[in-house]
Amino acid sequence: MSADEEKPLVSFEQLAELEDDFEQVDLELTRYQDKLTKDLYVKREKIIANIPHFWNSVFEVAPEEFEHAFKETDGSLLLSLKNLFVTRFELPNGDPRSFSIKWEFEENEFFEDKVLEKKFIYRQSLKGDVSGLVSEPVKINWKAGKDLTNGLLDLVLKVDAEDKAGKGDEETDAKKELKKKIEDTPLGDLSFFTWFAFRGPRITEEEHKEALKKEEEKRQLRKAGKPVEDDEMEEDEEDEDDLFDKAYEYEPYPAADDQALCIAEDIWPDAIKLYLQAQEDDILSDFEDLDDEDEDEDMDMADKAEPASKKRKA
Amino acid sequence: MSADEEKPLVSFEQLAELEDDFEQVDLELTRYQDKLTKDLYVKREKIIANIPHFWNSVFEVAPEEFEHAFKETDGSLLLSLKNLFVTRFELPNGDPRSFSIKWEFEENEFFEDKVLEKKFIYRQSLKGDVSGLVSEPVKINWKAGKDLTNGLLDLVLKVDAEDKAGKGDEETDAKKELKKKIEDTPLGDLSFFTWFAFRGPRITEEEHKEALKKEEEKRQLRKAGKPVEDDEMEEDEEDEDDLFDKAYEYEPYPAADDQALCIAEDIWPDAIKLYLQAQEDDILSDFEDLDDEDEDEDMDMADKAEPASKKRKA
Repeated sequence: MSADEEKPLVSFEQLAELEDDFEQVDLELTRYQDKLTKDLYVKREKIIANIPHFWNSVFEVAPEEFEHAFKETDGSLLLSLKNLFVTRFELPNGDPRSFSIKWEFEENEFFEDKVLEKKFIYRQSLKGDVSGLVSEPVKINWKAGKDLTNGLLDLVLKVDAEDKAGKGDEETDAKKELKKKIEDTPLGDLSFFTWFAFRGPRITEEEHKEALKKEEEKRQLRKAGKPVEDDEMEEDEEDEDDLFDKAYEYEPYPAADDQALCIAEDIWPDAIKLYLQAQEDDILSDFEDLDDEDEDEDMDMADKAEPASKKRKA
Repeated sequence: MSADEEKPLVSFEQLAELEDDFEQVDLELTRYQDKLTKDLYVKREKIIANIPHFWNSVFEVAPEEFEHAFKETDGSLLLSLKNLFVTRFELPNGDPRSFSIKWEFEENEFFEDKVLEKKFIYRQSLKGDVSGLVSEPVKINWKAGKDLTNGLLDLVLKVDAEDKAGKGDEETDAKKELKKKIEDTPLGDLSFFTWFAFRGPRITEEEHKEALKKEEEKRQLRKAGKPVEDDEMEEDEEDEDDLFDKAYEYEPYPAADDQALCIAEDIWPDAIKLYLQAQEDDILSDFEDLDDEDEDEDMDMADKAEPASKKRKA
């Protein structure tokens, strides 16, 4: 078998079947991980409760998805963030790809709510063969004059209510206003709390179930070695564009799903590591400040550095 | 409980215990993943065997760890790479962190070997509380005048044999020569095949077992709520420096362990995705070339693009 000899190419179906097999394993692993870590996260919550500003520190060293995400006022609000909790709420029997993020706040100057919870539900659609996270916009009860989203969140809630009342295809006044407000808001002024407005692609539960059923049928056909019908891809790609354009036209914070995934898959499991890293960064920057100011105080700072040097390397 | 009130800090031991609990879960998950994917990888191997230059394409779009890793001649050798296989060979009962990478080559102009296998064994040490991957240098039977490592690999093999013969602390002629050759070799001339020379930190199996035993004792003490003795960290940090300096002085390719981890954790599980990405990149660059040359041929290229547009998005 020489390298130059052209062999017949592997069929798309064979690769699709393999990818599907691996995807099923990934889902099973997420289910198992959830089972193994459930109690550990409860234990962690109790320990974290004794560390002041734990989550604020964690977000200081969060991955690039959160770069520039928090504006100045958002930051002061994060200091009131008492607790964060991620749950794959459809488990053990449902889809491990759906999850909820619960934010628990202390009394603060911005809103009345103690808890804000946002659910991200995994949905797939036959239209365009796409998948994504859909979500309900979450109402925040702002204190007078303290709405950080400058009305954007309330407008999304209004448009969402209209859509649910059957006005999905109508270009209502609220929709026009929302569209204009999105266009007029500079990215630098967009509060992170607009994240709670995210709705995602318009895939209904019925479409999702239909897509799952179709996928399972294909899987059975492939397992039985029977030919699987080709999806009409040309049409599908147009449907996909429709689906996303329609959704993102009224989405003031389209990065919300990527950030939610980043919380669920990186920040939430790695929170302790990120916290220790933030502590270390603080100490290092203290040292740097010191170098600029006064070399003689090095000994005091060395004492302060003690906790970070105890970080385990193994 | 206000945010400004300073609460007592959580002890290092509490965080260490938590981190240890999560680490144990990670190990268990890797074990389970290995079990679930074993047959799938065998199935994948059979499909890949029918795709010419599969692994060469995969390495074209490999993560940043492999940027500039392959020199021009390495590249032509990669075209002879018939198969790659990663095995966590200590499983089901041993450590999931140890793995082997097996490279299978077609007849080529550079060496006689059909298979080159390199094992990376997870070891930890009480000295400096460090862990790492240790490995044996792998002999390559170069054809006359074809040694891509310019003698570096053979020198490492010689030094390694001397060390095993008890000359570990002696500065032998071979060691002097190796050190000089490492210093004199520009990074741009360093062949990827020097990767096979990697030895890693000098942690013996005995040290490793001792460290595991100590770790288990600490774990039991923590579980029983008893105080765990403090490691003398000052001394440990010096030991750690010794351990790594000693190893890397005679290591012509110190990035080998990071690249090995990248293969085992990213390239190996994501190979199909990377291959499809490489195909798509090829087609896109064909389109770009075409734009420069002749706009009229667009229709032909659209046909050629068909396979990539069939990539599943869901």
